Formats: sequence, structure tokens, C-alpha cells
Amino acid sequence: MRKGKITIPTDESFVEGTKKISELWGADAVRDCDGTVLPANVAELADKVYNTYFVVRGDNRWAEKHPEETHRTFLMSERAIADGEKLTIPVMKGYFAQQIEPDWENVSYWEVIDRTAGESVKEWTADKKDGVVVLENAKPFHEYTVDFLAKIIWHPVQIYNYLTNNWTCEKQKMYDPAFPNTAEYIKKHMDEWCKAHPETNVVRFTTFLYQFSLVFNEKGKEKYVDWFGYGMSTSPAMLVDFEKEYGYKLRAEDFVDGGCYNNPFRIPSPRFRDYMRFVQKRVCATVRSLTDIVHANGKEAMMFLGDDWIGAEPYGEYFKETGLDAVVGSVGGGVTVRMLSEIPYVKYREGRFLPYFFPDTFFDGNEDAAVAELNKNWNTARRAIMRKPLDRIGFGGYLSLAAKFDKFVNRVAEVCDEFRAVSEAAGSAKPYNVLTVAVLNCWGKVRSWMSHMVAHELWYQQIYSYQGVLEALSGLPVEVRFISFEDVRKGIDKDIDVIINVGDAETAYSGGENWADEKVLTTLRRWVKEGHGFIGVGEPTAHASEKDGRFFRLADVLGVDKERGFTLSDDKYNIFAKKHFITEDVDGEIDYGEGMKNIYALADTDVLDIAISDRFKRSVNVGEVKLAANAYGKGRGVYIAGLPYSAANARLLLRAMIWSAGKENALKKAFSSNPLTECSYYPETGKYAIINNSDKEQTTTFYDINGKAAFVALRAGEILWK
Amino acid sequence: MRKGKITIPTDESFVEGTKKISELWGADAVRDCDGTVLPANVAELADKVYNTYFVVRGDNRWAEKHPEETHRTFLMSERAIADGEKLTIPVMKGYFAQQIEPDWENVSYWEVIDRTAGESVKEWTADKKDGVVVLENAKPFHEYTVDFLAKIIWHPVQIYNYLTNNWTCEKQKMYDPAFPNTAEYIKKHMDEWCKAHPETNVVRFTTFLYQFSLVFNEKGKEKYVDWFGYGMSTSPAMLVDFEKEYGYKLRAEDFVDGGCYNNPFRIPSPRFRDYMRFVQKRVCATVRSLTDIVHANGKEAMMFLGDDWIGAEPYGEYFKETGLDAVVGSVGGGVTVRMLSEIPYVKYREGRFLPYFFPDTFFDGNEDAAVAELNKNWNTARRAIMRKPLDRIGFGGYLSLAAKFDKFVNRVAEVCDEFRAVSEAAGSAKPYNVLTVAVLNCWGKVRSWMSHMVAHELWYQQIYSYQGVLEALSGLPVEVRFISFEDVRKGIDKDIDVIINVGDAETAYSGGENWADEKVLTTLRRWVKEGHGFIGVGEPTAHASEKDGRFFRLADVLGVDKERGFTLSDDKYNIFAKKHFITEDVDGEIDYGEGMKNIYALADTDVLDIAISDRFKRSVNVGEVKLAANAYGKGRGVYIAGLPYSAANARLLLRAMIWSAGKENALKKAFSSNPLTECSYYPETGKYAIINNSDKEQTTTFYDINGKAAFVALRAGEILWK
Repeated sequence: MRKGKITIPTDESFVEGTKKISELWGADAVRDCDGTVLPANVAELADKVYNTYFVVRGDNRWAEKHPEETHRTFLMSERAIADGEKLTIPVMKGYFAQQIEPDWENVSYWEVIDRTAGESVKEWTADKKDGVVVLENAKPFHEYTVDFLAKIIWHPVQIYNYLTNNWTCEKQKMYDPAFPNTAEYIKKHMDEWCKAHPETNVVRFTTFLYQFSLVFNEKGKEKYVDWFGYGMSTSPAMLVDFEKEYGYKLRAEDFVDGGCYNNPFRIPSPRFRDYMRFVQKRVCATVRSLTDIVHANGKEAMMFLGDDWIGAEPYGEYFKETGLDAVVGSVGGGVTVRMLSEIPYVKYREGRFLPYFFPDTFFDGNEDAAVAELNKNWNTARRAIMRKPLDRIGFGGYLSLAAKFDKFVNRVAEVCDEFRAVSEAAGSAKPYNVLTVAVLNCWGKVRSWMSHMVAHELWYQQIYSYQGVLEALSGLPVEVRFISFEDVRKGIDKDIDVIINVGDAETAYSGGENWADEKVLTTLRRWVKEGHGFIGVGEPTAHASEKDGRFFRLADVLGVDKERGFTLSDDKYNIFAKKHFITEDVDGEIDYGEGMKNIYALADTDVLDIAISDRFKRSVNVGEVKLAANAYGKGRGVYIAGLPYSAANARLLLRAMIWSAGKENALKKAFSSNPLTECSYYPETGKYAIINNSDKEQTTTFYDINGKAAFVALRAGEILWK
Repeated sequence: MRKGKITIPTDESFVEGTKKISELWGADAVRDCDGTVLPANVAELADKVYNTYFVVRGDNRWAEKHPEETHRTFLMSERAIADGEKLTIPVMKGYFAQQIEPDWENVSYWEVIDRTAGESVKEWTADKKDGVVVLENAKPFHEYTVDFLAKIIWHPVQIYNYLTNNWTCEKQKMYDPAFPNTAEYIKKHMDEWCKAHPETNVVRFTTFLYQFSLVFNEKGKEKYVDWFGYGMSTSPAMLVDFEKEYGYKLRAEDFVDGGCYNNPFRIPSPRFRDYMRFVQKRVCATVRSLTDIVHANGKEAMMFLGDDWIGAEPYGEYFKETGLDAVVGSVGGGVTVRMLSEIPYVKYREGRFLPYFFPDTFFDGNEDAAVAELNKNWNTARRAIMRKPLDRIGFGGYLSLAAKFDKFVNRVAEVCDEFRAVSEAAGSAKPYNVLTVAVLNCWGKVRSWMSHMVAHELWYQQIYSYQGVLEALSGLPVEVRFISFEDVRKGIDKDIDVIINVGDAETAYSGGENWADEKVLTTLRRWVKEGHGFIGVGEPTAHASEKDGRFFRLADVLGVDKERGFTLSDDKYNIFAKKHFITEDVDGEIDYGEGMKNIYALADTDVLDIAISDRFKRSVNVGEVKLAANAYGKGRGVYIAGLPYSAANARLLLRAMIWSAGKENALKKAFSSNPLTECSYYPETGKYAIINNSDKEQTTTFYDINGKAAFVALRAGEILWK
């Protein structure tokens, strides 16, 4: 129990320190990091040595030999308004010349779009000398953009690190194995590298072939970031191959997508879905050719879920072909734990915890903050680990920095022990779940635990009120599944009790046009009426129809709709909140995050919470419903305006799910009453774990699986086994 | 100066009191009210006697003789979900059986709509006995409604007064002159009535043929209200005539409109526009046949702008045909003043002021509140009267009630004097305006000063942040015009300096699909670039396009767009507010009312105000822009998130208009610096009026038309002439 499942960073200047800490933490693996070099005798430090490996960067000599084989991406120029008939558009305006360069040799792939008319323009010329596209017959006061193909001449992630840390090393160029020379080269290089690194047990791919979308502006600052973006996988070679396989040609605008670049909030077009499938198949096959070499050299292949991960979707249909042994990713909370811990087909999954051992955290006087960050990260992650454990955890950065802080080092040691204990108790046994819930959106399974993200783990004002639903789910005693509208059309899985639809109108997460599909609507109505639960958060089931005053297409199920100005003439009398099972644990105000404006309840709905501004006298037609419950046949609908993650909101969601599924009697089984605590039960071992998610002592009533109650007190952050 | 332009109510039990008050207030006209009877010797009380006249109600004997000639309306049943193939829909569910009755004799006009498929259903039967419509072949789990024709069997406005005041009088039925017998009857009755009322000088029509939409629920409470609704003008007679004139048949769903009943927030369909035009022509011609009779009897015809006013649109193309002498309407503030005072073709326009002399205000101990209501009403109305005076003002209710309160009676006397003074000074001379502004929406001129209203003058959470723009405009030194998208297509009037577009996305006020029209976009872009101003409030120029990431179609002009989740990947750096001409008079926080969420600024825009929640650290990608200014060629764009009326916001709007028009140097001419005060200048008479809109003493710097400054102090509510 005092050793194993832990990876630590090391470097050549900290060998003795590494040994000490390794022993204290029970580490069995060491790794290098960006900017560090493994010591010569690294194999003595741990059972396993991880070594970072880059597939499409790091060899500038190769890159310079084959500049035509660099990566490409389609970009949209700034929007330009034609003053008269002649319009000159400087394509690079707003872009970073050190990162990208227009591909003037492949202008045939470019496209000019009249954004005012929504049409592709036929007549224009590209002028490489001046870096512009010229229209001689523009329509005055129409808005135009150039969708241009650009070469990526500096690796985007390195740009970020380089400029942030004022590096002066070589700027890494890129090479794309979609092209024939590089396709051969990467295999040869892989084999040579394996042979040159006998000490390495695990090749830590960082990562494979295509970087997620990351574009910089003219000042070298981030301009566009999409952790899911497929934009940087495009190239003439790829497009030609796509056409061969799918029988049709993709256009520049298929990628530029009106400036939205098919980001995951967009409802994926059939053409983009085809392209994604094509890239996934291609990438996974290429990865396999590399993992075969790794295995032939007696090593393991580990994927870092980040950087150039595009196409290697861990929940995609081709992932099993990759031959990977492991995946590692950073852990920001429960969602990222589950995103990692549920990845299929690999032998083990590792989470890299925070804080990263970098000077921005580890400076004199900041030790308490470092410990607090560790505790926060561990406590939010732990509740997800209880439900579906990671196989390993680790840390990154400069170990020598962390080593200076005893309190921190000792606290990590405790965390490592606690992780091993949880891992042992929960590892093989599936915990007890009170019900099965499915999150319904356009992506379904392929984007399991990935919805509502922009840049990986970053907080945006527009997403945290929805991401909170997943964060809450990650640690609740429910089986979680991700389903698509296609899955609904095929028929809802028998074991699903509750479906959740969460997001803004017309996005891929809410579903947009799918809610105009009779099949989707009737399938869900029937399913709820027959005795299931449907929970909507934000603008669920929303789709504007000119023909109908309803906005939420399943307003009948949810019991609420959104007022967009078209039904103001309808008097609204249902503006008084009632007590309810769902809100029984609520203490004070519910935090709906950004909430949702202008939601009103239908006549028979139970309003559970409504916000009425001080401007209004309550009489009629006022207030914004924030929480509502609606009986629907034998089933039930629930509406929630928004649900940022908090312990209180996780409890609220649990109760909403249980109520909507009609399982109120199941609540107080394997349950801890205090919302700041949670209980997991492992039937196989008969063990209960009660965790205190807060940094204060808590008391709670613990109920066993038969509903027998007992009083329990927990120290701050404690995990108690019963 | 001490007499004239004032109308007061009277009744047979208050003759001597009327005389006293009439003298004190300088009244020259008396009127009756709902529930009062004019005294026998009424002609002795004033120069003019107004007498209320109802055209389509009040004679139940006639109504009972011709029940088939009552008014009709198309209503939508409650939405019903089919459980299986048989579906029974009770059409009257949720309606008030004392008000309406399904027209079972005209079931051929009914329609059943499958709301899930968005289609009209062919096979169904109506069962009068059970009051239901039955579908034998419903599609399971589709949602259906019945669009049924209903008879109106109790006048809606009387229902309201009757139930509110517990009346026990006869319930007034209705009769529609679209039918032949009633068409003849109303003329005959008009003539007889005139002859029977020799004491009457002014026939106060309350009102004409068709009631605005007002429907009650099963409890007798208001269910649906639309002061602009044409729904109650529909009948088989009308539909047959429409088809004759327009050559096509209207369907039930043309009126039901997905449950929105063509309320004015809906973008009017071409079919509904045809119908409106048809009704207006019809109503105005019928009114003319009545006013001819009134005139032949030596009396004047006055329209009450309310109740059955539908079709007699005062800004409509047929209004000049009505032959009306006058219009009277209630005054809730500046907007209603201007709505009345600008009505063309009549000889005079009268505003009825608040408070109404009813027991709910005039009870012991409430005198100060009554005076306060009077002052508030007068102060908000006065600033509009300064710009375009009413010809007369008046009061309603029971004069005997008001008479008990000396302070109130004396304050009204002052108001009457002040009104006459303003009227004299401003009456003939047009005040100086610094610029001309046009409010652009789907309605244009026909709904001048009428936008964003639901029930006349009632406050809704979704409208006050937009109505405030009109309220501010009503008293500002600018010429105000209302234009439609059709007007823009034809070419913008040369004298317009600034265009304002205000409202929620896809409504008739914002414009919806009109923003997909290249002609509209290019005309406005060219016009702004050439040196004009464009101001957007709320979701201006918004129209969702699947092909484009932009939501505000003139984001280039406004300098902002709304984040709907599709451009989260774009980094937003423009999040710091700057000082600006527009905000120079701002003291403290600006009140944006409901504001607008998720507005972000384009890169070159000047952000003037941005809201950043305490949840966020300001770095990038945070904050919601509330106010922004954008240079656009020689012109300028301004964005405002919302603008409820206040003195401060009126000033903000004035500055925004002046800045957008590039007329900053014109601000301090005929101007009063303190935002709680305003200045009007009448070039013809050379007079300046400085008004204190507040109930406290104010000091201000007054600038004459040449910019010469002088210090001025004003008592609470004072008007100062220079």
C-alpha cells in the first residue's frame, strides 16, 4: 500500500532529491517534462521511465528539407466591407506571421465568401506580393472574407510556451504524415528513437499528428483556441484522399464555417462529420503503425490527451485500433477524471494533478496556497475517482521546486496514500448507482465528459453554468452515459432512467434543428410518459420555429418555455414557488450561475423557484422561473435555469434526477445527508466510503443500503470507510 | 389664459360642485363616464358637452334579435398530446364560457394543426354536444391544437369592468357591422341617438367596430391581451369579403399564428398585412358613414383611442377618410402624449390625465398620494408636451370624489394653467431640434409611438428596457420619425441624421428576417459610412444565420455582437471601458434595465461600459459589454444594452444620438446642463422653456442657442420661461 500508481517528474540535476521524494510518495514511475532532461541513470530511480515523444515536430532539419509537407489550416481573413466595386483584402491581417503563412501555391483551395449574400464569389485574384486578395467586381457594401489555406510554420503549443517563458531555443517547425515523405519518416524515426532510448519503458506521445486549433494574433497572443478543433489536420494531401474515399470534394468554407470553424458548439454538418470520421480513421491507423514499432522495441505506448490529439478521439470508433497501452491527461476536477478514467481499450489511465511544479506557484511564501490548490484539486477529483477510479496519478514540472516545501511534500504523500486506498477499495468493484442517466446532445458517446468545453478546462462565462451539470454528475451515485439524437432515433436504451439536455439554444449541446424532428420529439414524449425522467438545463429542446409560439419543443414535458417576446400577450399566473422534494436540502439561495432569462411556467407546472426583481410588484406576468417540476404521464420533467458546480447544486441535481425517475424512496440508501459529504457503496466488497468534500469538519447522517441511519462526524477532507 | 382647453367629468348628482371646479380649473367641456349620467341641464355647465357613444354594444335587444351577427374571433385550443391514435380535444378548456362560445355552425372555418409536424390536419370531426374535436387517426405523441372560430357573447371591456367592480347591470352583447343587418342598424341608431341628444356637442366614440384582443380564462380573469390585436374583427362575413377583394382565402391559422395571434412583436406576414389593410379600409369607411351623420346633426365626432379602436389606426393610410374631428386618449407619460399629439387629420387631440377619479385613489388619507400621482404624470407628460403639445387635457371618473381634496383640486388648477401656458408658447411654433432621428422597425409610421407595447401602458419585464428609448425621445430636442424596412429599401429620407433599431432578436421591433436582406444591409452601411449615426439597443439587426458566426448583421456598424456559443473560441481582448462624450454626464452606474447578456466588442470598438461579475478575474474573454461606440467611415455606430426611462438615460440617449451624428458641437445650444432639467427653444417666439423634471430644487447651466451660458435655479417641477 505504500508504493505504486504514482508518477513523478525528474531531471538530471535532481537525482538524489528525486530518490527521497519517490520513496516518500511511493512513486514507481518517473517522467521528463518540457524543458527537462532525464538523468543518465534514470532507470535506477523507478520501476518505469516515461519519456516524452513528439511525432510531428522536434526535427527541424526534416521540416526544412520538406517545407511543402508542413501542416495546413483554413483560416478566415478579417471581414471587409466593399466601399465600391474594387475590394482588396489583406489575408494575414490579425494573424501571427511567425506562426502561419498563406499557402500561395495552393490558392486553388481558397474561397472568397460574400457574407452579406451568403454566397461563394467566383471572380477574384490572389496577389502574393502584396499579401492580398483582390475583387474587381465586388458588390458595394457587401461584407467579404477570404477563406485561405495557410501553412503552419511554428508549432502552436511551443509558441505558447516559448512566448510565455521567453525561451530562446529553436522554434519547432512541423511536418504532416498526410504527405508521403513524412509518412515514411515518422516510422523510421520512431524505430530509431526507441533503439536510442533503451532506458525508456513508456513512450509518452505528446501527442500524435494534428494539433488542436490554436491560432495567434499579430501580437503573438492567442487569437483562437478550440481544444476539439480539427482545423489543423487539413491539407491538400488530406483533401485529395478524402475525396477519393468519400466521393466528394470539401470546400474551404466547409472548414471555415462562417468563422466558427466547426467548433463543438456548432451542430456538426454531415460533411464535417464525414471529415472527422476520415481523420479519425487515418490518425488511428497511423498511430497503430507507431505503437507497433514501440511494442516491437519492448516498450509501452502512452498518449497524452492534449496538444496534437486530434483524430485520436478516445471515445471514437477507431480508438481501439491505435494499440495504445495507456492514456495520461491533466486533471482539473471530476469531469476530467471521468473523461480519463472511462477511456476504453487501454490498460491504464493516469491523471496528472495540480499544481504543476512551476515557479508561478512554488515561490517563497506561497506554500499554503500550493497546499490549498492541491487540496482543492484532490477534493474535486476524488469524488469522481470514487465512482470510477483512475489507475494512476502523477505530477509534472520541476520536482526540485516542490521539494523545497515540506508541508506540500508531506501533503502529497497523504494524497498518494489516499489514492492507493481508494483505488484498492473501489478498483475492481463497480459502485452502487441509484439510477442511470444519459446526457443527450449532438455528439453523444464520442464526446463523453467533454461537453461545453472551449479551451481544455478553462472557465468561460457562457459555459460554467452548464459544465456544472457534468461536474456534479462526475461524483454522484448514478451511472452516466452520453447519447446522441441518433441514439434516440434508434430507440432509447432500456436501462436509462433519466435524460438530461443542457445548453444554449441552437448549439450542439442543446440540439437545435434536431428538435424539429418528429421522431425525436415523439420518442422522448412516449418514453417520459411511460415513466422516465427528463431534465432540461438552460435552453433545453429549444428550436425557433416561425410557425409556432413555443420555443422549447418539449415545453409540454419540461413545463416551462422561454418568452422571446411573442407570447407576452398571454397572461402568466403561475408565479408562486412551492416546496418540493427536489429542494428539500436547499439552504439559502440556489446558485444558477448565469441562469436563464425570461423562462415562464405553463399553467400546471410546479414552480420551485422564481426570481422577481425589486422593480416589479408581484401580480401577474412577472418573474423568471429558475426551477420547475412537471408531472408528465407516469414520468416527470424538471427544468433548471443553470447549474454551476457546488456541493449544494450536486445535491439538487441528484434529487432532481431521483424525483424525475420517480425513485424518491431510493434517496436515503447508501446516502450521506449533509450535502457537503457524499457516500459511495461498493457492493462487491460491502464497503461504504463517506467523503467530506469541504475543508471544514462536518457531521452527517449516514444511511446504509437498507436505509439504516447512523450519525457520523468527518474531519476536513476526510474519507471514512465503513 | 384662465379658461379653456380643459375637459372634466360630471354627473347628475354633482351639478353645483361641477360648476365650482369648472371655474377654478378653467374647464370648457364636460363629459360623462362609465357608470355616470349627465345632468339634465348639462349645457349650462360648459361650452361643450361630450357624450359617450358605443357603436357595437349597448343594445342587447338588437343583439338578441341577430345573434348570428355577433363578433367572432379565432382562438387556439389548449395544446393536446396524442397518447394513441384517438385524440379528443375540448376546445373551450381554459376559456370563459360567459365571454365566448365556439361557432359550431361555422366549423368549416376551423382548422386542426399538428404542431409537432407543423401541418394542417385533414381528418377530424367536431362534436358540439361534448364540446370537443375528435381525431381518429392522430399520430401518437404529436401535439395538436384546434384553431376554432368563436362567437363573442359579452363585450370584453365590459367584462373587465363588470367583474372588477362587481356590477350587476345587463351584460352587453355585441353586433358586428360586417353583417348586413347590423351594417344598416348602426347608421340608423346613430342618427336617432344624435337627435335624442340635442345637448351633446361632441360624440365621444368609445370606440368603433372591433375590440382589441381581450380574452378571459375559465376563472373570468384576463387570459390574453393585445392592445393592437386584430383578432376580434374576424368573422365569416369579413373573410368572404376579404377573399372577394384580395382573391385568396385566409385560413384559421393565419389568425391563430402558432398561438401568437399576430401580436405586434411578430414580424407581420404578407397575409396578415393584407388583412390589416382590408380591415382598416373597411373600418374607416364605416366610421365615415357615422361621422357624416354626426356632422349632419351639427355635432363633432371624437374617437377614444382604446377599446374597439381596431382598424381605425390613427397613423394608418385610411385614417384621413374617417372624418373625425378629434381624438382623446389616456396619458401615461411622454410616449402616450406624442402618440396622441401627432395624430394627423383631426382638428384637436385631447389627453386624459391621471389619476382617474376613482375610489381606489380618492379615499381618506390618500390625498398626498393622489397629488404625487398627478405630479408624476404631469412631469413625465410635460416634457413631451413641450415638444409637441396636446390641444386639450382632461380628467375622468367621479368629480365629486376629487372635489373632497382641496390640495388636489388646487394642484390640478395649477397644472391646467401651466398646460395653457405651454400650449400658448409652443402651440404654433415648432421647437428647435438638434437633429432628426428615425426609429426603424417592421411597422414604421403606422405604429408611431406604439412600439413595444402589449397591453396599453402596462409595464412588462421584457419591454421597459426598450420602451424607455421612446419615452426618452418623447421629450428630447430631436425630430422623431418612425420608419419601416420598406422605407429603408426605398431610400432613407435625406433629413434623417440618426436611425435607432431597438428590440429583441427576431421580433418586429428588431426586424428579424429583414436583416437577411442585402438591400437593407447595404443601404444602411452606405448611409452610415457617408456620415450618419446608427444606434442599436438590445438585439439590434440580429438574425440567426446558420452560415455565419455573426448574429448582429450590422455588427460591423455597431461594433459589437452577441455571443451565442459559436464564437467562444475567439479570444476577446477588448474588455476595458474608456471615457467618452456619450458618458460625460453619467453619475454612478448606468441603468440598462434588463440589459442584454453576452454582448462582446469587436477589436476596434470603443467599449464605454462593461459588466464583469465578481465570479471572474478580468483577463480575457470575460465581461458583457453594455455600451459601445464605433467609428464607421464618416459615420458612427452606438450600442446600448437597454435603456429604461430615467432622466439620466434620456441624457445618455441624447448624447449618443448627437455623437453618432457627429454633432458634438451642437450639444450645448438651447441646452440645460443638469440632466434632471431640460430646455426647449421656440425659434418663432424666441422663447426658451427650462423645465425641472424632478420633485426637488435643481441648479443648472442654461445655454442659449448661441451657446451663451447662464446659471439657473429651478423649484421642484418648475417651468421657467426665458
